[in-house]
Amino acid sequence: MKKQKLLINGERLSKTLEKFADFGRTVNNGVTRLSLTEEDRLVRDYFCSCCEELGMTIKVDDLGNIYATLPGIEDKPPIVMGSHMDTVKKGGRFDGILGVVAGLEVVRTLVENNIKPKIPVMIVNFTNEEGARFEPSMMSSGILSGKFEKTIMLQKTDCEGTTFEEALNTSGYAGEVESRLKEATAFLELHIEQGPILERESLTIGVVECVLGMVCYEIEVTGESDHAGTTPMNMRKDAFFTTNSLITEARQKLGMLDDDLVFTMGRVNVFPNIHTVIPNKVIFSLEARHKDPKTIRQVEEIIEGLTTPGSKDGCEIQVTKLWDRDTVWFDKSICDLLEQSTNSLGLSYKRMVSGAGHDAQFIASYIPTAMVFVPSINGKSHCEEELTTWEDCEKGVNVILETVLAIQSK
Amino acid sequence: MKKQKLLINGERLSKTLEKFADFGRTVNNGVTRLSLTEEDRLVRDYFCSCCEELGMTIKVDDLGNIYATLPGIEDKPPIVMGSHMDTVKKGGRFDGILGVVAGLEVVRTLVENNIKPKIPVMIVNFTNEEGARFEPSMMSSGILSGKFEKTIMLQKTDCEGTTFEEALNTSGYAGEVESRLKEATAFLELHIEQGPILERESLTIGVVECVLGMVCYEIEVTGESDHAGTTPMNMRKDAFFTTNSLITEARQKLGMLDDDLVFTMGRVNVFPNIHTVIPNKVIFSLEARHKDPKTIRQVEEIIEGLTTPGSKDGCEIQVTKLWDRDTVWFDKSICDLLEQSTNSLGLSYKRMVSGAGHDAQFIASYIPTAMVFVPSINGKSHCEEELTTWEDCEKGVNVILETVLAIQSK
Repeated sequence: MKKQKLLINGERLSKTLEKFADFGRTVNNGVTRLSLTEEDRLVRDYFCSCCEELGMTIKVDDLGNIYATLPGIEDKPPIVMGSHMDTVKKGGRFDGILGVVAGLEVVRTLVENNIKPKIPVMIVNFTNEEGARFEPSMMSSGILSGKFEKTIMLQKTDCEGTTFEEALNTSGYAGEVESRLKEATAFLELHIEQGPILERESLTIGVVECVLGMVCYEIEVTGESDHAGTTPMNMRKDAFFTTNSLITEARQKLGMLDDDLVFTMGRVNVFPNIHTVIPNKVIFSLEARHKDPKTIRQVEEIIEGLTTPGSKDGCEIQVTKLWDRDTVWFDKSICDLLEQSTNSLGLSYKRMVSGAGHDAQFIASYIPTAMVFVPSINGKSHCEEELTTWEDCEKGVNVILETVLAIQSK
Repeated sequence: MKKQKLLINGERLSKTLEKFADFGRTVNNGVTRLSLTEEDRLVRDYFCSCCEELGMTIKVDDLGNIYATLPGIEDKPPIVMGSHMDTVKKGGRFDGILGVVAGLEVVRTLVENNIKPKIPVMIVNFTNEEGARFEPSMMSSGILSGKFEKTIMLQKTDCEGTTFEEALNTSGYAGEVESRLKEATAFLELHIEQGPILERESLTIGVVECVLGMVCYEIEVTGESDHAGTTPMNMRKDAFFTTNSLITEARQKLGMLDDDLVFTMGRVNVFPNIHTVIPNKVIFSLEARHKDPKTIRQVEEIIEGLTTPGSKDGCEIQVTKLWDRDTVWFDKSICDLLEQSTNSLGLSYKRMVSGAGHDAQFIASYIPTAMVFVPSINGKSHCEEELTTWEDCEKGVNVILETVLAIQSK
């Protein structure tokens, strides 16, 4: 007879998720819990009390990252689960918090089944992942991994001029630098997909192999601002019409590169933006993401080639690369373990990529890391309509539990 | 021997224009003189004092329009010259004021040559032509001609909440309704072209036959706001990309209609306007101007046809006609007189259209009216760089003088 599989308690999980959503819940059933605000302080307090009830020890580092550890039989680097508890303004009940509550539910399941793990099990909450209060996003994991400079980050201000450092001190969650996460056996981050793929393909689990590399440009088109009624068409330098031609060309060329390439012009500002005046300037963003650096290179060639021969329809075109980042590949053996766990639970899944950024991409630089996605209804996130079914949340957490157990018994 | 032509004093004209520019002159040699502000009150006072020195009588109507009259030998409806003294913020030294100072210079020339006109000669200053402080533009001439409702206009507010009525009363220029301009022998408005045509064609004078008819639309494209990194291209409803396609189509179709058609998309707003989020909404203006109503009708068919079959690339498209106006044709006999005057002065000229709106288009509804344009360097207006050479100003005013004399002797 087949051994009964250890599974988490789905009902307890959904109640816990709802309980956490009470910290900053909006009238439309979303959550506003900006980093290091009063709502964030209260949810941190509640999270710590939940962990302490389970016999976990709490440490807080100098960035406000919280580490709750269930001791193991052996003194080995822990298996870490977690994500972040902050949200964007009018965000949802799942983004970030699911990964933290997943850790809590896994430990609750271990403790109620009297399973003392061989390797310590840790839950982490990273401070200011969203970057919604203090830019940039993934600030603390970025500092942990050496990507960002702490002294610079401490001086980042929110829209009211409060610095990250002041907010940290006010929150009571400024701990010791010695407590930082330095080594671990593995880091597992469960997260909502934030895209439509799993739902459209009727799949439950995404085993995330990488976070896409990307490149972000700002393109500035400068023409001349003339009277819309008095300037013949052939005497105009219309920055918006030139932008229109540029974008048509860019869309056509980028569209031919690869089906998996995504590109977006999300921010567009037209000046002087008066209906009777020919626009003299348009500034727009163009970002593109793909896992293959060769494809990103092709994107760069196309975007930078848009300027040739330097001006179009009399307008000047300036292309500035704001930044780029390479694709971050997750640990292959962890991905394989996640896939085995998913299979052993009989869940449908696919190997996939993450187009969004996550703390895991920074942690991956020094800890064997991988992520698990569960479906986002209509692909929505960062909004009050963000939704993942309780069933999918439960299945995702079971994959995490199964993988923690698999690493324990390796 | 040919009779010596009566000409204005070019040097006095340029000094007068500079003197008027002192009321609200900006550091960059432009003018900010919003309607019914302190600068406007002071320039009005100065204008009235100049007219009184010439023996003219001043009347002010209930809209603050100023009428200065040099009496004629016969009690006939006056020949009216003028324009407006208000400017946009950081406007130029010529737009509007040139037409008023032209009247002053014509009367000065008559008076210093002891010419008592047969028909009275009047100079008018229309209140709030620019609409830069109180929308709509051409407010007072619009009320005079019955286009706008006075009670509604009085309640229009500036950006600080002051109503037009309050500003009128504060200015001291709220006069009597009986003083309104009711009939006149002719209305002549000299104005800068505000476009590049005269300069490009090396011509001095534009005899303006009409103010172009136009139509103005607002087009709203609604898509879906998704994560720029996680949403595959074929699952997007990108409102900005759909807008790009729409505009390409509109430009192509409109561009084939007629060389004289002008069309502009001057105001474009993209939402939520974040570089990592696929735009879910774009709202943009589309205005087109042409003298032929058949062409405007074709424009309407094209714009309204853009929505067929109701949605594009998954986005909804809503096309709203905000307003339209018919082409206003000026009085043919006045235009002919202006052309004769120009010819008799040996000036190069062309018959042309006005793409911009002017008080003259409303006054034309009840008084025989026409306009004269002089070249705008680089076609610029409504900016501090606005420039018309002193020579061209002088020539334009001479055309007005010559035409006033021609009407006198008819």
